[in-house]
Amino acid sequence: MQEFTKFPTKTGRRSLSRSISQSSTDSYSSDSSDDEVSPREKQQTNSKGSSNFCVKNIKQAEFGRREIEIAEQDMSALISLRKRAQGEKPLAGAKIVGCTHITAQTAVLIETLCALGAQCRWSACNIYSTQNEVAAALAEAGVAVFAWKGESEDDFWWCIDRCVNMDGWQANMILDDGGDLTHWVYKKYPNVFKKIRGIVEESVTGVHRLYQLSKAGKLCVPAMNVNDSVTKQKFDNLYCCRESILDGLKRTTDVMFGGKQVVVCGYGEVGKGCCAALKALGAIVYITEIDPICALQACMDGFRVVKLNEVIRQVDVVITCTGNKNVVTREHLDRMKNSCIVCNMGHSNTEIDVTSLRTPELTWERVRSQVDHVIWPDGKRVVLLAEGRLLNLSCSTVPTFVLSITATTQALALIELYNAPEGRYKQDVYLLPKKMDEYVASLHLPSFDAHLTELSDDQAKYLGLNKNGPFKPNYYRY
Amino acid sequence: MQEFTKFPTKTGRRSLSRSISQSSTDSYSSDSSDDEVSPREKQQTNSKGSSNFCVKNIKQAEFGRREIEIAEQDMSALISLRKRAQGEKPLAGAKIVGCTHITAQTAVLIETLCALGAQCRWSACNIYSTQNEVAAALAEAGVAVFAWKGESEDDFWWCIDRCVNMDGWQANMILDDGGDLTHWVYKKYPNVFKKIRGIVEESVTGVHRLYQLSKAGKLCVPAMNVNDSVTKQKFDNLYCCRESILDGLKRTTDVMFGGKQVVVCGYGEVGKGCCAALKALGAIVYITEIDPICALQACMDGFRVVKLNEVIRQVDVVITCTGNKNVVTREHLDRMKNSCIVCNMGHSNTEIDVTSLRTPELTWERVRSQVDHVIWPDGKRVVLLAEGRLLNLSCSTVPTFVLSITATTQALALIELYNAPEGRYKQDVYLLPKKMDEYVASLHLPSFDAHLTELSDDQAKYLGLNKNGPFKPNYYRY
Amino acid sequence: MQEFTKFPTKTGRRSLSRSISQSSTDSYSSDSSDDEVSPREKQQTNSKGSSNFCVKNIKQAEFGRREIEIAEQDMSALISLRKRAQGEKPLAGAKIVGCTHITAQTAVLIETLCALGAQCRWSACNIYSTQNEVAAALAEAGVAVFAWKGESEDDFWWCIDRCVNMDGWQANMILDDGGDLTHWVYKKYPNVFKKIRGIVEESVTGVHRLYQLSKAGKLCVPAMNVNDSVTKQKFDNLYCCRESILDGLKRTTDVMFGGKQVVVCGYGEVGKGCCAALKALGAIVYITEIDPICALQACMDGFRVVKLNEVIRQVDVVITCTGNKNVVTREHLDRMKNSCIVCNMGHSNTEIDVTSLRTPELTWERVRSQVDHVIWPDGKRVVLLAEGRLLNLSCSTVPTFVLSITATTQALALIELYNAPEGRYKQDVYLLPKKMDEYVASLHLPSFDAHLTELSDDQAKYLGLNKNGPFKPNYYRY
Amino acid sequence: MQEFTKFPTKTGRRSLSRSISQSSTDSYSSDSSDDEVSPREKQQTNSKGSSNFCVKNIKQAEFGRREIEIAEQDMSALISLRKRAQGEKPLAGAKIVGCTHITAQTAVLIETLCALGAQCRWSACNIYSTQNEVAAALAEAGVAVFAWKGESEDDFWWCIDRCVNMDGWQANMILDDGGDLTHWVYKKYPNVFKKIRGIVEESVTGVHRLYQLSKAGKLCVPAMNVNDSVTKQKFDNLYCCRESILDGLKRTTDVMFGGKQVVVCGYGEVGKGCCAALKALGAIVYITEIDPICALQACMDGFRVVKLNEVIRQVDVVITCTGNKNVVTREHLDRMKNSCIVCNMGHSNTEIDVTSLRTPELTWERVRSQVDHVIWPDGKRVVLLAEGRLLNLSCSTVPTFVLSITATTQALALIELYNAPEGRYKQDVYLLPKKMDEYVASLHLPSFDAHLTELSDDQAKYLGLNKNGPFKPNYYRY
Repeated sequence: MQEFTKFPTKTGRRSLSRSISQSSTDSYSSDSSDDEVSPREKQQTNSKGSSNFCVKNIKQAEFGRREIEIAEQDMSALISLRKRAQGEKPLAGAKIVGCTHITAQTAVLIETLCALGAQCRWSACNIYSTQNEVAAALAEAGVAVFAWKGESEDDFWWCIDRCVNMDGWQANMILDDGGDLTHWVYKKYPNVFKKIRGIVEESVTGVHRLYQLSKAGKLCVPAMNVNDSVTKQKFDNLYCCRESILDGLKRTTDVMFGGKQVVVCGYGEVGKGCCAALKALGAIVYITEIDPICALQACMDGFRVVKLNEVIRQVDVVITCTGNKNVVTREHLDRMKNSCIVCNMGHSNTEIDVTSLRTPELTWERVRSQVDHVIWPDGKRVVLLAEGRLLNLSCSTVPTFVLSITATTQALALIELYNAPEGRYKQDVYLLPKKMDEYVASLHLPSFDAHLTELSDDQAKYLGLNKNGPFKPNYYRY
Repeated sequence: MQEFTKFPTKTGRRSLSRSISQSSTDSYSSDSSDDEVSPREKQQTNSKGSSNFCVKNIKQAEFGRREIEIAEQDMSALISLRKRAQGEKPLAGAKIVGCTHITAQTAVLIETLCALGAQCRWSACNIYSTQNEVAAALAEAGVAVFAWKGESEDDFWWCIDRCVNMDGWQANMILDDGGDLTHWVYKKYPNVFKKIRGIVEESVTGVHRLYQLSKAGKLCVPAMNVNDSVTKQKFDNLYCCRESILDGLKRTTDVMFGGKQVVVCGYGEVGKGCCAALKALGAIVYITEIDPICALQACMDGFRVVKLNEVIRQVDVVITCTGNKNVVTREHLDRMKNSCIVCNMGHSNTEIDVTSLRTPELTWERVRSQVDHVIWPDGKRVVLLAEGRLLNLSCSTVPTFVLSITATTQALALIELYNAPEGRYKQDVYLLPKKMDEYVASLHLPSFDAHLTELSDDQAKYLGLNKNGPFKPNYYRY
Repeated sequence: MQEFTKFPTKTGRRSLSRSISQSSTDSYSSDSSDDEVSPREKQQTNSKGSSNFCVKNIKQAEFGRREIEIAEQDMSALISLRKRAQGEKPLAGAKIVGCTHITAQTAVLIETLCALGAQCRWSACNIYSTQNEVAAALAEAGVAVFAWKGESEDDFWWCIDRCVNMDGWQANMILDDGGDLTHWVYKKYPNVFKKIRGIVEESVTGVHRLYQLSKAGKLCVPAMNVNDSVTKQKFDNLYCCRESILDGLKRTTDVMFGGKQVVVCGYGEVGKGCCAALKALGAIVYITEIDPICALQACMDGFRVVKLNEVIRQVDVVITCTGNKNVVTREHLDRMKNSCIVCNMGHSNTEIDVTSLRTPELTWERVRSQVDHVIWPDGKRVVLLAEGRLLNLSCSTVPTFVLSITATTQALALIELYNAPEGRYKQDVYLLPKKMDEYVASLHLPSFDAHLTELSDDQAKYLGLNKNGPFKPNYYRY
Repeated sequence: MQEFTKFPTKTGRRSLSRSISQSSTDSYSSDSSDDEVSPREKQQTNSKGSSNFCVKNIKQAEFGRREIEIAEQDMSALISLRKRAQGEKPLAGAKIVGCTHITAQTAVLIETLCALGAQCRWSACNIYSTQNEVAAALAEAGVAVFAWKGESEDDFWWCIDRCVNMDGWQANMILDDGGDLTHWVYKKYPNVFKKIRGIVEESVTGVHRLYQLSKAGKLCVPAMNVNDSVTKQKFDNLYCCRESILDGLKRTTDVMFGGKQVVVCGYGEVGKGCCAALKALGAIVYITEIDPICALQACMDGFRVVKLNEVIRQVDVVITCTGNKNVVTREHLDRMKNSCIVCNMGHSNTEIDVTSLRTPELTWERVRSQVDHVIWPDGKRVVLLAEGRLLNLSCSTVPTFVLSITATTQALALIELYNAPEGRYKQDVYLLPKKMDEYVASLHLPSFDAHLTELSDDQAKYLGLNKNGPFKPNYYRY
């Protein structure tokens, strides 16, 4: 159980997944919260008399419901899944314990699971990311939700515990985002795994932990790795970043893109998305890469591939998308020109060596929310966004439609694991079958009024394919 | 004087020019203003003891100064103008009375005029657009500024009057944006024109009025039409809208652009800018046009040109950029699909027939700031942004760099008129000489580290051009 | 008459207009021409017994007819003009003498003029550009055409003379491309101008000559400057070059565009078209400019603006689009890297100093048609295309659709001048009225199935426009 | 051995791989060949006195050598491989029998193999694709080449046999493209496999055969599947088609792209490349797809996904990229509008049902090389390119640089198999190790002057990577 014994500090320890971000509604919402009583100490009851939840303020349910309804409009794949699967209730009997961000989008997922027959108990995977109104709306609708914005470390584990540990109710499915719920069950309630049919995990970190467990022979139920599914990788990274890089930069700095010189560190899916958007709006983009294949793609796509030092004095914006650490060092920061903007779109908050800027000779000036000017003795200012944390998480929103793709994948993974015949899945980590990836995609096509072509019998035979897919080999790169 | 006799109601009557918009800093700024005393009744003094101003709160000067400094970083053309012209002080002796939006960007302009030798007295051309902190900073720096956010109609004219009517000081130049200042002088102080060397006017409306005066033989001083200068038209419209359409839509609706079907009404400069940005981010764009030449450009640029009715049922977003009225009618609105977003990027707020939506069978729901859901009896929602007013004005910011181009043009127009030898300009409306347009552009090239090529003597002779320009005939279309 | 006295040498003296180019069919056509008899000495008769023409070989008429029919499919505006104007025959009584390139596209124009009621006599404006089969088809159809490919200087003027000088037939309209026909009439048959109602001229050179005549007070009839009409300028330059730059480079060098570093000299319409295409296909493009306004546009469009010397050592391709001379000098050529491609898309063949390469130490090697390797003593090769003449003229084709726009403009200019009431046009050079520009555009919209929106009465009034146009002021830049 | 027993008819039976195409030099080359004597009956000797080859005309060697030298300039990766590996001669002792297209590009590959120490005997994998001059140049340089353009079926196998069957020389490596050479050895000289260390195969077809052999347990040596390597898939398909679709359409039809409506059937790598280029030049593109994931990508990239029937009446161009058969049926062809262009960029020539057009009521008219008009009784014409065969093969060229990537991969695969320690590879089909893919890419970066970033020790440790790669997991999708 060693993999799970190091309790990380909850505060700010784990970056939110790319899929969750500050809502635009935050400032508009009525979350005035001068109310300082801990939710754990409040007695709250929803309109049906239930107290089987713990949220900030059940009275915010109505506002939260509207946010959920707005989200539903861009998550028609889940709504359509509700309709298609409603008759058969493929999750009838499922008792799902979940731990994810609690937002309007995940609420749509949770309510879809319920509509398909499941009972759900839910906590938050991040102490900051809960939308209190949405949690209230879920509680009002009868979901056993235990979460609020600004939980303490202790609150965090208490909420998880309340989900797992309930008399007369034992989970048989786990939906996790980050692995903390899975960890807690492993540590405190290992017997629960006897009934668990499977774990569905979305995050890089959580998946990594599951593979470690598997390698160590300690994974005692099947697990589904949603993180590496095609739809999540291609859509959540490439397209999502294409949308959010502009938004994040505009909201924080109002920078004009036309003619700006930008260096993007890393030309993976995230970098590709950022570069496509910036180039399209008239920026001149340089790339740094360590991988020659990605570098060659950058060349063919019309970007100059350079070492950071070659352009650091001339660029107006520096964006990191590597997943690596110390990609932008103090030395680079020292050489940047006045007003250079520095931000991070990569996986973690380690890419920019922000710590190196916390020295006495530099002055920090907070000029706007999420925007710091770091001022050199000679007056040069570097504009640091979100203190080096994920820009699109901190400073922009993520399209609900993209979140819908991931949420639908999670729902299908749960259905697949719950209904799989004995023996189809061993005590190992699996990718979603390609056919289900294709099904996730097909559920999202009506949003675009897109019409698929069907193979004729003759064509299917010619291609050696089943008419209903899967249409590609597993190694297909899209 | 009939042209100027109809006093429009001040409240919401004139849309802001494209060049001014809500600052991103609004929410961050300390403008809590529970202080309800009218600035006109306050006694305020700046740190040098002067009371020659009227602003909301002189104590906000420091915050405003920082905003001005941030703006200066993207307005290096004006800073460079200060340096180049400082020795000779080309505005020495100029007494400029101005009436413009009062923002960080115009503050950089005003302080540039002062640095070039002018004395300035300034009021706001819009009752809502003043950034109070910036006004305070100007007052603290010694500019006679009379403006605050939320003026009444009466306040508005009082402020203008305070600028014009001062014992011992008589203006010899006018810088106007909208024509109200010019109107006031015509009406109340016609004798002032005896000393006035010229008027510089930026807005469509103000320029229109000047041409009417000229046609009626009543224009008694030379006037410079800055609105139709190349740099303003091409950059303020095309590039500015390319930047701001995405920003405005994202900040209000978090809409995903990829795969969205959008109809853009009008393919002038504004429409071209919007379409370029939307297409670049993966939207499918349709155009409506009345002008066959613009329509043919749209075709060649890869857009389908349709009548609005042909696509109104299928599109996800409707954007108006025509300058016309009732382009989107109630009938169109009735036929839109659920969740369709409707907004206006055009000149006025008449393009969408918003009035037609104020009927009892429709429910309005304000879901976010600047975002209304209009709900049909069958539950269909149309998402209306900024109540049909200019989207990029209300819901996004405009790049400071673009404002710098216009501000520099204004400064040069003032210098030109102030220093022109007797007789160069008659009592008529003029465009800035092309050579000065080119000079404005050249002042902005260093921001991009762009290096111009110089003609050799031999080449200049071959082309029949002066080596220093102008380089194009007046009718050149760029 | 001095303007017209210098007879330029015909051979290679004038570059073809952008609108004419080598046909792709050249190699396929049956133009074996071992027949060495001069057409002037042949006796040829068409199938109706007429000998009123002089072409290479009347037997090629059938092949030429098919080429004309293919062209008609992309020139539906002219076909549509035939239909709309057929009843009224607006050119009934017109006797047009023309001198243009003789290609399938001009044949469609000529036959349209005939269908509208005109009688036509036609010669070629270039000794090389005649498509013999097309000339044969015109002759067979009854047009009095005098032209073949490979005329001598003497043939050239003989053909023009045969058009003008015919007993019992006197021209009353001139359609010229380059000014040679106009010159000949001025010089040899000045009395003809008594009957001429107007001249329509397409070329830069010809228009320049007309303005000189006008300035000198020697223009004795109205003339229409088609060259500077909006439709020709924007479409013939911007879009046409966007299409043909890639084609010209591929056909000659098979170069891959992805990742190539390219410098484009000049960011006018031609440069803008080239840059848009190259960037779109993954090239990295640098710009040189002398005009700060165009340079600023280049910056905003995402190109670095440099001096040629800054990038000459690193670029893979150099393209000139300036209209200037010696833009690429021997010094630049000396510094290019091995395999650098150099070509010209500008107005004349002076942009690259090709003469400087004709020195003993350099070896020229013709590697393909229109492709020379110039080899330095150290083995470095520079790839020179079309010996510095216009690339898209020499090495690619021009879309028929673009030619249709110009041809339609010429037809309308003839109709306008021929039918204009006495006094509307003086002895001066005119631009086509904007309304006719708009009409030209509108005739081309059906090709794209584009549907124009019509103004309501109310909207027209609001905008102060006539519902049928013109829709823009003359100075509108598009 | 059943897999290999069906001898397909050689004539036109196998489409050329994407990597080989008509050379632009064809028409320029001196291949007049009125010489009708079969090369097999000629006595030819190169300048060193060797007769160990059989080509069309050894005298063409000089011209071929120049073509090879031109190709070398875009294949610097192979030149660089020669330099890096020259000292150690990694192929010393290798006796390679090869069967590929014989072009300037493969000549660079063959001569690289020789420079690395190998002895080579070579034949052509296609009876039409040999560039005779290049074969002559290889023969002159001492390579035992047996190939000419226009071989008979019997010649084809005779040439292969001459390569394999030579006294005193026994091959120990096979480089094949299509599997015919491998087949011949299996059938005629199975004992040769005792010495063979491995087979390198490039084509889809050949790889398919190898997998069948492997599955049947009959593969008796290791084989390397080059076809599915990342570099070949991504670069040879996506980027290559982006370059060649425009070229192929222009050279055949001179079509204007701006505003054209195009339907592309299939949004795999080939379709993605075609769409990117067409959209970039102003075409309006529709997609048909059977795979919902690819369809969703098309949506996000800004294309409407339709069934072919929905748009067939309105489009100007139809392009197939599916690998399927009868994607465009007679019914579709019947419904196309006049002048619609139909062509195929997919894998085989089955996508368009061309056979269905060979009916009496339709007239075929060959209007240009590779261009047929098929004429319906009502006069409607459909423009069919290359009779439905691969457009970019038949009507455009393929960038040498892309061919270089594949050729370098082949060379590295040979080196790997030849030098692999006993036991590393079994009797199975392998993909090139990722590290060698990365090496291929890195060899091509200098062409773009691209500079890779190197990981620090610390960063490599953080990422858990070796500093020299491989940098990505095998399932990475790029």
